[in-house]
Amino acid sequence: MQFHLNGFRTGDPAIAEMTDPDPAGSRLDTLPDEVDVLIIGCGPAGLTLAAQLAAFPEISTCIVDQKDGPLQMGQADGIACRTMEMFHAFGFVERVLKEAYWVNETVFWKPDAAARERITRHGRVQDVEDGLSEFPHVILSQARVHDFYLEAMRHSPSRLEPHYSRRLLDLATQPGAGSSHPVTARLERLDPSHAGRIETVRARYVVGCDGARSVVRKSIGRSLQGDAANQAWGVMDVLAVTDFPDIRLKALIQSAGEGTIVLIPREGGYLVRIYVELDKLREDERVGSRNITVDYLIAAVQRILHPYAIEVKEVVWWSVYEIGQRLCEKFDDVPEEQVGERLPRIFIAGDACHTHSPKAGQGMNVSMQDSFNLGWKLASVLRGRCAPALLHSYSAERQSIARELIEFDREWAKMLSAPLKAAGDPRGEGVDPAEVQDYFVRHGRYTAGTATRYAPGLLTGGPSRRPLATGFAIGTRLHSAPVIRLADAKPVHLGHVAKADGRWRLLAFAGAEDRASPVGRLGALCEFLEKSDRSPVRRYTRGSEDIDAVIDLRAVLQQGHRDLDLESMHPLLRPRKGRHGLRDYEKVFCPDLASGHDVFDLRGIDRKAGCLIIVRPDQYVAQVLPLEAHDQLGAFFDRFMLPQTDTRNAG
Amino acid sequence: MQFHLNGFRTGDPAIAEMTDPDPAGSRLDTLPDEVDVLIIGCGPAGLTLAAQLAAFPEISTCIVDQKDGPLQMGQADGIACRTMEMFHAFGFVERVLKEAYWVNETVFWKPDAAARERITRHGRVQDVEDGLSEFPHVILSQARVHDFYLEAMRHSPSRLEPHYSRRLLDLATQPGAGSSHPVTARLERLDPSHAGRIETVRARYVVGCDGARSVVRKSIGRSLQGDAANQAWGVMDVLAVTDFPDIRLKALIQSAGEGTIVLIPREGGYLVRIYVELDKLREDERVGSRNITVDYLIAAVQRILHPYAIEVKEVVWWSVYEIGQRLCEKFDDVPEEQVGERLPRIFIAGDACHTHSPKAGQGMNVSMQDSFNLGWKLASVLRGRCAPALLHSYSAERQSIARELIEFDREWAKMLSAPLKAAGDPRGEGVDPAEVQDYFVRHGRYTAGTATRYAPGLLTGGPSRRPLATGFAIGTRLHSAPVIRLADAKPVHLGHVAKADGRWRLLAFAGAEDRASPVGRLGALCEFLEKSDRSPVRRYTRGSEDIDAVIDLRAVLQQGHRDLDLESMHPLLRPRKGRHGLRDYEKVFCPDLASGHDVFDLRGIDRKAGCLIIVRPDQYVAQVLPLEAHDQLGAFFDRFMLPQTDTRNAG
Repeated sequence: MQFHLNGFRTGDPAIAEMTDPDPAGSRLDTLPDEVDVLIIGCGPAGLTLAAQLAAFPEISTCIVDQKDGPLQMGQADGIACRTMEMFHAFGFVERVLKEAYWVNETVFWKPDAAARERITRHGRVQDVEDGLSEFPHVILSQARVHDFYLEAMRHSPSRLEPHYSRRLLDLATQPGAGSSHPVTARLERLDPSHAGRIETVRARYVVGCDGARSVVRKSIGRSLQGDAANQAWGVMDVLAVTDFPDIRLKALIQSAGEGTIVLIPREGGYLVRIYVELDKLREDERVGSRNITVDYLIAAVQRILHPYAIEVKEVVWWSVYEIGQRLCEKFDDVPEEQVGERLPRIFIAGDACHTHSPKAGQGMNVSMQDSFNLGWKLASVLRGRCAPALLHSYSAERQSIARELIEFDREWAKMLSAPLKAAGDPRGEGVDPAEVQDYFVRHGRYTAGTATRYAPGLLTGGPSRRPLATGFAIGTRLHSAPVIRLADAKPVHLGHVAKADGRWRLLAFAGAEDRASPVGRLGALCEFLEKSDRSPVRRYTRGSEDIDAVIDLRAVLQQGHRDLDLESMHPLLRPRKGRHGLRDYEKVFCPDLASGHDVFDLRGIDRKAGCLIIVRPDQYVAQVLPLEAHDQLGAFFDRFMLPQTDTRNAG
Repeated sequence: MQFHLNGFRTGDPAIAEMTDPDPAGSRLDTLPDEVDVLIIGCGPAGLTLAAQLAAFPEISTCIVDQKDGPLQMGQADGIACRTMEMFHAFGFVERVLKEAYWVNETVFWKPDAAARERITRHGRVQDVEDGLSEFPHVILSQARVHDFYLEAMRHSPSRLEPHYSRRLLDLATQPGAGSSHPVTARLERLDPSHAGRIETVRARYVVGCDGARSVVRKSIGRSLQGDAANQAWGVMDVLAVTDFPDIRLKALIQSAGEGTIVLIPREGGYLVRIYVELDKLREDERVGSRNITVDYLIAAVQRILHPYAIEVKEVVWWSVYEIGQRLCEKFDDVPEEQVGERLPRIFIAGDACHTHSPKAGQGMNVSMQDSFNLGWKLASVLRGRCAPALLHSYSAERQSIARELIEFDREWAKMLSAPLKAAGDPRGEGVDPAEVQDYFVRHGRYTAGTATRYAPGLLTGGPSRRPLATGFAIGTRLHSAPVIRLADAKPVHLGHVAKADGRWRLLAFAGAEDRASPVGRLGALCEFLEKSDRSPVRRYTRGSEDIDAVIDLRAVLQQGHRDLDLESMHPLLRPRKGRHGLRDYEKVFCPDLASGHDVFDLRGIDRKAGCLIIVRPDQYVAQVLPLEAHDQLGAFFDRFMLPQTDTRNAG
């Protein structure tokens, strides 16, 4: 954490200084007439977006929800490694690590070959492969994730708080470019003391994070397309006593004739979630009509677990749902054929765009990544840093990710629901439990959320001729690695420089002999960035801002941290910032040689040439360039950023 | 973290359920008439004690301070590894880790041999030796440490809040055993609206954490004895710009003729604390009379740092103080010769007992360890678990630790203030900078707080004939080690089972072939603990309490976690607890074989015999016994614990 830059401040450094004396949080009773962004829905997608926008006090944001307060229990619980990396950027990953259940191993149970009415363990695998992420796969109530986002919003410079008990009635968009706030939302209050009162909000942008039955989606004439649901699952969070030995491990349990359960231990050491496969639904049969009770679910679990017993002591929450893989064709209000002519004003994210089974633990994660992708883009446009055409990239990038998710989920759900092969008939109908385990292992990176790869485009470079860093694949999330911070010898994770602050990062890995002196290749890059008229740092950073306010340069050298001289390095690597012109000493890193984990080896960096990694504000690798590719570096940013009038160039 | 044991509860699990509908926190305006414990002073010692007592809602605690609110800045900042271990027990170490500066390395500067008016770096050492603690040595404002304790109190079942603006006038003790609340305190309100109003509180116990000028100490007729201070130091927290290359490393800088500074980087990346040696004081000269200004301090730093420049941009806090090593002869109100006849009712802790220089970063740490030692003892007596004679052990144990501190500090302060040897005259007067560095390294364990060793006595066993665990020295703090939790395969630290909850821990390390079945040696220990009339678990745990409420048994086996069968282990290792009789699955651990850090090797445990470690509620190793030493185990607890009437034995 860095703080006290603009002078010492007492108290919790995680609570930002308030810039607006009358922030949104103090006007909670009524909705504002006009906002930059109106977010519909306080689920994971909505709160991720709100927390991102709240970091910029100059952006006015309003987030509403139909419910009368924060979520208390139930719903999603799986948090993938990739999501933990994002939580680090939002500043609350430590609390999730402390409170959550860690999915360290997954076990597989199938019918015993000798006595098929009994289940037996047939496999046990590490849940996440070594080195895939510095964070584990964890399980924590969605309600707690909401709490952490709400606290991040509350502690932000905007002091953002949701407005509850508001239902969106409809959206209307004013055609043409005349209005600064072209979208009008009508909302109905649901709290008893104001029930039925209609409020109107004019917004520059509206984002529908309002779930599978999204009113926002409907308002832009879009719908979810896909399979009719024909498979039902029950889910319950319970406190129970059992002699099943793997009750504290994630377990996939397939019985011979009683169906399948997925057992997921929960935070706190006692709670467990159990997903129960229910019978096949008849075509068009609605879940509600089946009158399934929680006792029915418990009885099913008891049959499947045989010969183990389970006694449920408390049912905390339960639900029955249908599996249906459905997807929206586009995530904004601009028809495909009008992309060249119109700019998007209304977006949808999360379940409003894609629905699927919860079994792979992807729902909450993909939804949050949707709005993490959108958040910095909206902020960049609203802050006058990028042209609004950037906003087209949201739907383009995230719709194809959602399509992959739907395909994965369809396959996985089918596998979990398929009948098991009969004993002694390996070629018969159905699925072999070993196949299921194999599928799970092969798709580990996918379920960890680290397989996402954006296609080449405006924000993502094409593959390079020769790879300068085999471990930093263009279009994938920045894969962190341990390093030592030069100035204070602290072991840190390089990826943790990437905060959810809307900034781009340049990670410059120096060549073997380079010590960042002004005359080497790293020094030449610094010279270019600091002094050239073509420098994106100069072109896109305002004169009143810190030198790293828009593009944040960090360097990683190959020498041990005791073998380098900070003071002989290029001044851009120890820049002066803030009101006092204090030096920032956290820009230069070295390999963690004592631990044996040299970042240059871990990420396959060309030791002779070094390289430059361009990292997006949402932690994805946009491009990998040679250190000396100054023109390409400038050209990359010139594609979508707006030159500032009051720039450092102007000064 | 374990929670939901007595049923699911929404919200932050770190916020305990409130047991008293009208807790102290809601009666803040006036002091209570009668309390179990009255704590004078909201410094580190007072808050550690208050946070410990607040964990027990049946104990009424009142903590007061002269100041009108929480500390905002200044004062101590060094947090030793041992203190971090204690912070883990109080539940907030993650926040300190995140916010604090980490002291990874320490550098030493001395006059350049070729040009003695210039300083040059002559040494660089790792600050804490590898493996000494799982936590680093860190620097964080005392104000933030207070904040974390205040939050822990606020979130405790007691919802304890301090009463500010209260000055203790005097204490009176009612002689004889007739009164349940024999100590009467008179306090004066200092807040403008009630200024001068006198309040009276009757307490069972009073603890003076009221600093070097302690009124509590005076009231029991004790005083600080020791050296007159004849050395003055200045200290300042500043935001500055410098070309001194080690500004982000802890640095001891000794100049040839301008004196010595100790430079300590602070949290947030920019702030730095600088201690400046001032000239020798004349005998009896008071600091206040010297009219030292902060500009004087800054000028001294500028001279000492030559040839480097430093420009101070903001002085956050500064002070001048005299070094004086002083110690109180006893830390309670019972004269040494009356220990056999009288029970202590009034205690002193922290600076009220010992004062010394801040240069070794020990003050805040030793003070907190004082009251961590006292807290569980007071709670045990007030909860009817231990005879009040236990309270004699507080002064006995902590006074000798303070004596060691005073001796260490005297030596270290002398070394820092001594003139440097003249160049080319290694046998001349003064100290060689290399000697200073050598002293620092040799005393690393002491300054880390891990060298504390309580002498054999009521609570501490004598050395065993043959050591069963060379890495768990009797009388020292439990040295944690990495292990894998059997039930969920989670990598955890064994020492982190020790929370600040007043419970004793038994760590049973199994012999090589032992799988904790009811018939092995570990099983036999469990049988004894669960069923024998001599079992301390049965004798001292009430029938209404969980089996581990007083003595918490954990087992560590030698096999890998995939090679053991939880269900075949003795039932005491998976006990049923709480309202629902849920099983606790966090009692059994295995070595972390994949990491290569096998706890049996790391702590030198006899692999054939195994052993049993008795750990005190304040995390110190009380005794190491053979697993089969059931009688000795029982006898250990019988020395100081009170048999309960409604025990498990009775049932």
